[in-house]
Amino acid sequence: MPLERTINRISEFVSERDWSQFHNSKDLALALSIEAAELNELFLWKSTEGADPIKLKEELADIFIYALLLAEKHNLNIEDIILEKLQKNSDKYPINRAKGKSDKYTELI
Amino acid sequence: MPLERTINRISEFVSERDWSQFHNSKDLALALSIEAAELNELFLWKSTEGADPIKLKEELADIFIYALLLAEKHNLNIEDIILEKLQKNSDKYPINRAKGKSDKYTELI
Amino acid sequence: MPLERTINRISEFVSERDWSQFHNSKDLALALSIEAAELNELFLWKSTEGADPIKLKEELADIFIYALLLAEKHNLNIEDIILEKLQKNSDKYPINRAKGKSDKYTELI
Amino acid sequence: MPLERTINRISEFVSERDWSQFHNSKDLALALSIEAAELNELFLWKSTEGADPIKLKEELADIFIYALLLAEKHNLNIEDIILEKLQKNSDKYPINRAKGKSDKYTELI
Repeated sequence: MPLERTINRISEFVSERDWSQFHNSKDLALALSIEAAELNELFLWKSTEGADPIKLKEELADIFIYALLLAEKHNLNIEDIILEKLQKNSDKYPINRAKGKSDKYTELI
Repeated sequence: MPLERTINRISEFVSERDWSQFHNSKDLALALSIEAAELNELFLWKSTEGADPIKLKEELADIFIYALLLAEKHNLNIEDIILEKLQKNSDKYPINRAKGKSDKYTELI
Repeated sequence: MPLERTINRISEFVSERDWSQFHNSKDLALALSIEAAELNELFLWKSTEGADPIKLKEELADIFIYALLLAEKHNLNIEDIILEKLQKNSDKYPINRAKGKSDKYTELI
Repeated sequence: MPLERTINRISEFVSERDWSQFHNSKDLALALSIEAAELNELFLWKSTEGADPIKLKEELADIFIYALLLAEKHNLNIEDIILEKLQKNSDKYPINRAKGKSDKYTELI
């Protein structure tokens, strides 16, 4: 299991504060999207690389924390689900049709 | 480096499609928040555990993929940034004041 | 034009601060989604009606402000686009099939 | 009341489908943020004015629909809440300090 020590530290942090009572899947997903918005706010009205690097690191960490809590709750191994999804994305975006194009797969001819 | 094999596979997927030209930090953050919204849509008008488990696994994988691409772009070790952020959160949410409470730290008395 | 006085007041607020230089469509859309996340944060870890009513009013106002700025920038009459979209939604969700169901139209049999 | 006819048509659309049973405030806010993400997706990997104008109009309409449903549920007059919030924003962003700057008010010196 990758990141095992890190996941254990997150679980300990939650458990010490008795917070797992709040951590249903719907609210964890909501928390994740709120952190994603805070990450995006670092770029608002700015250039594509205009975010403060310290804040970027912190917001990204919060996103990983909620994503790992959700994965843990559903007994998902993150390496497995990522590799499986990359395989699925490979089918949706075959190299010969998707190369150099940013179109959504529904729009690739 | 944790997840090294997985990160390499993601980089390979991107590189085969010549997509790194699109992957500026602002758009990667935006992509991440769009995937987070798709994860949340699985719970819309539903109970807290009402999401389809297959789709949940896939949307969560997409979130990890964009989060890892952003971390990689900024040379961030995800274990390091998570542990550092947990330390910061511990200061904002001391156990004796935060235990059993879901309040935002600005509202904890 | 509905809301004309209100839209004029928003334009004046922006103009006085010389902010229209920042208001490209992509960042206005991003700002809108960040405000939507702040609205959602009022419900995080809470019941379905658990938001603070003062804050709800304020976050909702910010959402309307960015949505109106975006509509104005694209010369869209909001009554027209809403009525047109309701017509399209009526086709996607015919009463006899959608009644009492929260399914996405792609899942309605 | 501005937009009265439009709000009545939205209410009728919802009522014909017996959907108000799903429309608690938390899920309406969630729906709004999902539509905001769909609006943002029109700009993903694209320039600041690169969105498809037809889709922009439709996503913006969906955002207005959910925002109006939420306002209606809480008996909020949207002109009143917008004008009130503009007044509050004027205090946070005084013209002499905010002019020509995109900084968040917490960062204005």
